[in-house]
Amino acid sequence: MGNQRRVYHRSAVTDADNMNRSVLRQIGMPMSDRRGVERNKIEQGQSGGRRTEELMATTNTPAISRYPLRKLEDLPEDIRARMLEVQEKAGFIPNVFLTLAHRPDEFRAFFAYHDALMLRDSGLSKAEREMIVVATSGANDCLYCIVAHGAILRIYAKNPLLADQVAANYRKADISARQKAMLDFALKVALRSVELVDADYERLRDHGFTDEDIWDIGAIAAFFALSNRMANLIGMRPNDEFHLLGRLPRKA
Amino acid sequence: MGNQRRVYHRSAVTDADNMNRSVLRQIGMPMSDRRGVERNKIEQGQSGGRRTEELMATTNTPAISRYPLRKLEDLPEDIRARMLEVQEKAGFIPNVFLTLAHRPDEFRAFFAYHDALMLRDSGLSKAEREMIVVATSGANDCLYCIVAHGAILRIYAKNPLLADQVAANYRKADISARQKAMLDFALKVALRSVELVDADYERLRDHGFTDEDIWDIGAIAAFFALSNRMANLIGMRPNDEFHLLGRLPRKA
Amino acid sequence: MGNQRRVYHRSAVTDADNMNRSVLRQIGMPMSDRRGVERNKIEQGQSGGRRTEELMATTNTPAISRYPLRKLEDLPEDIRARMLEVQEKAGFIPNVFLTLAHRPDEFRAFFAYHDALMLRDSGLSKAEREMIVVATSGANDCLYCIVAHGAILRIYAKNPLLADQVAANYRKADISARQKAMLDFALKVALRSVELVDADYERLRDHGFTDEDIWDIGAIAAFFALSNRMANLIGMRPNDEFHLLGRLPRKA
Amino acid sequence: MGNQRRVYHRSAVTDADNMNRSVLRQIGMPMSDRRGVERNKIEQGQSGGRRTEELMATTNTPAISRYPLRKLEDLPEDIRARMLEVQEKAGFIPNVFLTLAHRPDEFRAFFAYHDALMLRDSGLSKAEREMIVVATSGANDCLYCIVAHGAILRIYAKNPLLADQVAANYRKADISARQKAMLDFALKVALRSVELVDADYERLRDHGFTDEDIWDIGAIAAFFALSNRMANLIGMRPNDEFHLLGRLPRKA
Amino acid sequence: MGNQRRVYHRSAVTDADNMNRSVLRQIGMPMSDRRGVERNKIEQGQSGGRRTEELMATTNTPAISRYPLRKLEDLPEDIRARMLEVQEKAGFIPNVFLTLAHRPDEFRAFFAYHDALMLRDSGLSKAEREMIVVATSGANDCLYCIVAHGAILRIYAKNPLLADQVAANYRKADISARQKAMLDFALKVALRSVELVDADYERLRDHGFTDEDIWDIGAIAAFFALSNRMANLIGMRPNDEFHLLGRLPRKA
Amino acid sequence: MGNQRRVYHRSAVTDADNMNRSVLRQIGMPMSDRRGVERNKIEQGQSGGRRTEELMATTNTPAISRYPLRKLEDLPEDIRARMLEVQEKAGFIPNVFLTLAHRPDEFRAFFAYHDALMLRDSGLSKAEREMIVVATSGANDCLYCIVAHGAILRIYAKNPLLADQVAANYRKADISARQKAMLDFALKVALRSVELVDADYERLRDHGFTDEDIWDIGAIAAFFALSNRMANLIGMRPNDEFHLLGRLPRKA
Repeated sequence: MGNQRRVYHRSAVTDADNMNRSVLRQIGMPMSDRRGVERNKIEQGQSGGRRTEELMATTNTPAISRYPLRKLEDLPEDIRARMLEVQEKAGFIPNVFLTLAHRPDEFRAFFAYHDALMLRDSGLSKAEREMIVVATSGANDCLYCIVAHGAILRIYAKNPLLADQVAANYRKADISARQKAMLDFALKVALRSVELVDADYERLRDHGFTDEDIWDIGAIAAFFALSNRMANLIGMRPNDEFHLLGRLPRKA
Repeated sequence: MGNQRRVYHRSAVTDADNMNRSVLRQIGMPMSDRRGVERNKIEQGQSGGRRTEELMATTNTPAISRYPLRKLEDLPEDIRARMLEVQEKAGFIPNVFLTLAHRPDEFRAFFAYHDALMLRDSGLSKAEREMIVVATSGANDCLYCIVAHGAILRIYAKNPLLADQVAANYRKADISARQKAMLDFALKVALRSVELVDADYERLRDHGFTDEDIWDIGAIAAFFALSNRMANLIGMRPNDEFHLLGRLPRKA
Repeated sequence: MGNQRRVYHRSAVTDADNMNRSVLRQIGMPMSDRRGVERNKIEQGQSGGRRTEELMATTNTPAISRYPLRKLEDLPEDIRARMLEVQEKAGFIPNVFLTLAHRPDEFRAFFAYHDALMLRDSGLSKAEREMIVVATSGANDCLYCIVAHGAILRIYAKNPLLADQVAANYRKADISARQKAMLDFALKVALRSVELVDADYERLRDHGFTDEDIWDIGAIAAFFALSNRMANLIGMRPNDEFHLLGRLPRKA
Repeated sequence: MGNQRRVYHRSAVTDADNMNRSVLRQIGMPMSDRRGVERNKIEQGQSGGRRTEELMATTNTPAISRYPLRKLEDLPEDIRARMLEVQEKAGFIPNVFLTLAHRPDEFRAFFAYHDALMLRDSGLSKAEREMIVVATSGANDCLYCIVAHGAILRIYAKNPLLADQVAANYRKADISARQKAMLDFALKVALRSVELVDADYERLRDHGFTDEDIWDIGAIAAFFALSNRMANLIGMRPNDEFHLLGRLPRKA
Repeated sequence: MGNQRRVYHRSAVTDADNMNRSVLRQIGMPMSDRRGVERNKIEQGQSGGRRTEELMATTNTPAISRYPLRKLEDLPEDIRARMLEVQEKAGFIPNVFLTLAHRPDEFRAFFAYHDALMLRDSGLSKAEREMIVVATSGANDCLYCIVAHGAILRIYAKNPLLADQVAANYRKADISARQKAMLDFALKVALRSVELVDADYERLRDHGFTDEDIWDIGAIAAFFALSNRMANLIGMRPNDEFHLLGRLPRKA
Repeated sequence: MGNQRRVYHRSAVTDADNMNRSVLRQIGMPMSDRRGVERNKIEQGQSGGRRTEELMATTNTPAISRYPLRKLEDLPEDIRARMLEVQEKAGFIPNVFLTLAHRPDEFRAFFAYHDALMLRDSGLSKAEREMIVVATSGANDCLYCIVAHGAILRIYAKNPLLADQVAANYRKADISARQKAMLDFALKVALRSVELVDADYERLRDHGFTDEDIWDIGAIAAFFALSNRMANLIGMRPNDEFHLLGRLPRKA
């Protein structure tokens, strides 16, 4: 893929590469010369000799946060471990980890809450939970969450179109009537929760949702009300990788 | 105080007492015959013989949540401990603890996040942080947070009027211009965070807020965006005690 | 009560006392040395020797209006009489009287309108009428009306919790389904009266409201649309007393 | 004019005539056979023999209120007198009088308030006061007030275009910058009075408005917040005459 | 009519006359000495000697656009022809033609689109189509379209009251339930088209609208979403004539 | 690319292929067996023998419009020619052509307007014009325009990230301050054009925009106000191809 990118979108790709390197430099991570999906990897135990070219000025690099990034070696061990774990899976470290690490206690609570909702055994599939994230983040105009969770939704749903549909207008997305009812409720929680009345819960039960499912739907909408605002507050920038993830078939 | 209440607001007080007892019965807590501020106390090690009258039907008791309350003995030890700790300080258990315990993992993340923001060393005083909670909860029409955090604000600010002012219209509250700028920013995070621009941060810096203070302001607004929606989702009811707390002088 | 207040909330209470004295001085009212509920009383026929301490500067007193207060002796006789009458009942003069007296003709029309709606024989109880005031004033974010009419609602309903509930979210208040339908209609009049259609009236009739009741509901919402805007226009400040009224049992 | 109307808009005019006659019949007023501006006149002391054609069914007549109209002879003397007075000046009785007379006490307070604001000696011209009415009624989508006060504005301003401009978009009306600032403030009172801050008052003072002028601007906006909601509540219909008034030159 | 106008609204009429002459002068059109409806007519083949009085300064003339008007002789032949055609029918050239001619290609596309929707054979009457224009332009606060299409609606509907009703609140206009449903749909397209769901289309079908009718309703609302924004963008001013058109009977 | 897609997103790709074939069948276009970018091509003069598998039921294919698609042979020659032309350039026919062809006259006006704005010589680059489309379509939640014009923006700007940024929150996009001011203005035209005042135009001039540039900015926002509503009205579905276009480098 790397070779191809050089031809057509050269400037954009170069910028993206520079940005990723710049971010990694800021957090003190050693840098391999591999590009693309692998390029953000923390090399565990690597000695970290940087290549000359990486020392070039990167003054035009878009910041991924209004707040400074902590150096990797300044991070508490559990947070560094979490980063290595996600990098192992995703091939790079999503900026939500790098930026929220500015405040370790809040970082821990944030991801504990996230995991409690998004990883639990639930009547909602993982794709359905990501639909809630993408639909409410779209309503809240949160760039980071639309792009990052849009990628995750594409992957879980194995559908390259769904995230764009749900972010813009879930009413026309390729989803079931039951899922549209789920998103109607989630949007109400996100935008005017004061108006929730019994009829809203009844409608979900009519679609076969249990009360625990309803908690999940509402709580995910509530958690991303927090998440969207944090991202907008600190100007969290999505990793370039997310824009493309799940849009192409995995290499055979 | 108990004697006086019996005269004037008898029905309301009786209802409130019944409700509190009913709630405590639901969570399996032993019950003393003391009323008022002390009446919700968990009696550690008490054998818990209930008075006959407490066995009466309480079918009309307003629920404190749309979801069932877990029995005290079914709660994980750390959550029970947290409840005892807050009861020790407040004299009763705020319903946010009783209701969110329905989901222990989310309970833990919620309070960890809360404490990380509200208890940390900050350039904002505790009263200022509660102003943010009350102002944004007012904008989100969250009954639980307006009433419960209104009480906390009255206590921290040693001002019986401030919470009502801030919940309705902080622009006319008895606070400084600096605090009004703080709340302007918090409300923007709460209601239209997508529109945050550099000028918003500059204005706060002009008032002497540091970047860490700004994170605190925005993050508290963001956390209560979550909290308000959870309260509205599950129909969380404020404890009766909160309505009066901080409105009267402490007994000498 | 006075003694207790001195202990805990000393500064707040002192400020409040100062403010009340200051206001009374501005309108030229004689001052007794009694505090608390009685302290705003006009002493009819009293010679009015002021205590030395009352002559101290009170430059920090929060104003109760953006407009000057008229001296008692400059007020027309009927307006002064009305003030004495309300003081007789309430123990103090609500600031809406003191501030609107700036314009005697408007004062007279305002209270004539108020009385025509709030004192008439109606299918709505007085508590129900105050619910409409508090709910619509909450929607209009009018500090004066939320606090002052919240107190009146507590007293009429003999319920110390109801006003806080109705101001924040009447959908979850301890009121009947019929009363919630009443407030749905009142809020529609307050916020988007252009959208009123036959179905809105039918729904109220289904709950047993007569057409005259419906006029009452809508007209009270309409009158407080005026009242809320006047209060916000002139920066009308609620008397400190209102914040606590109706929250405690009457003394036996 | 009457002859001409018969040619072009026959059906509309006939309907309008029928409606006016129907309304007058409902309130028990005697009917002359004159048409046009004179046709609603109460003939004082007239014996009132109706022409046969007036006895025809008028079932399709649009109602001027959701509420019944009181018979002229059932009205209190002062209200009847007020109606005769306005008829003397305008040539017909505006429907706001006929419809609000359903509740005499509210009628009296309404017009006392109206007169206190609209007839007082003020730094604002009468045309300027009507601009405030038309602009805020446009924002509130109140058909009665746009049409009736639009007519009054055309007459006071001696300008047949101004009312349509101000109702749709005062920012582009043929008025001064000072008058636009006045309407900016009035609209803020009408739509989001909670957000009023010192700078809003300062801006008006910079345009030469006194504090009393500011009260006038805000109080007129506040009074028509009431008036617009009452009109929408009862479905008040503007008299047909208002639509044309002030659009044509007065006959020489 | 001319004579009458001179008496009452002299200044307004004079201004209007001046304005029309000024506009015509700007576009280089020859000027007859006729007034009123005929006064804007392009005299085809006329040699165009202007009367002295027309050379007077008209510096206070309100502009009909923020953009310069093209001289008649600079306009492409097809656009000049279109102007002559509309003048033939209406007696004057609506400002939408004069102002949009600034960009001939957009002019052509605009009127081609307009005609495709407004002149086609449709299940909607021409009056119904104009109702859609007036109702959505009212919602968008577009002065030009409310006034100009209000006039057209009065003429097509042969009803001098309807346009004012529909612009302010179609829910209370003298139209059928079917037409109100049509306008409900049109307003949804105008204001929140993202929320359109199957039930909206079903409701129109229940009122007897075909799918082609529904396209017409929605497409007219969509086209005037464009038109309203163009008018607001360039500050398009309605011709004075439109304010009165259709309010009076045609002369016999 | 085809081979790769079969591995990872098999079901999605298969669905997409089916949909494209189904659409082409509905409009009577011959079908080649090529897939991917080439698969929607009209084969001019081709005999069109379909493969057996293409005759399978496609009942689950998402419709690209609520309205029927016209057969290719039923389309007027100029419209068919336009489709062939765009197919030549893009490799497929965007659904906006296929769906709007339902009404040939409106089709012609629509694309004439589009071309007049988007293809003209302008002070705005083509990428800047597409930014306006994507930003206002994002604000209007128009799925078709976000996805289709997002692709065009990526291609013109040679930037794979920009469209997602601009659709979600242009304030944080990688664009210049001048371009942000351009989008501020465009959004105001899109969402509240009535509030445009001189200061808005001045601000653009301060950034170096000419009055003609301002017309372009506003007119593009206005045209896509129409376009977005048409797409939402008929449920226009973006071609699958658009989701990926411009995200990958062109093959060398």
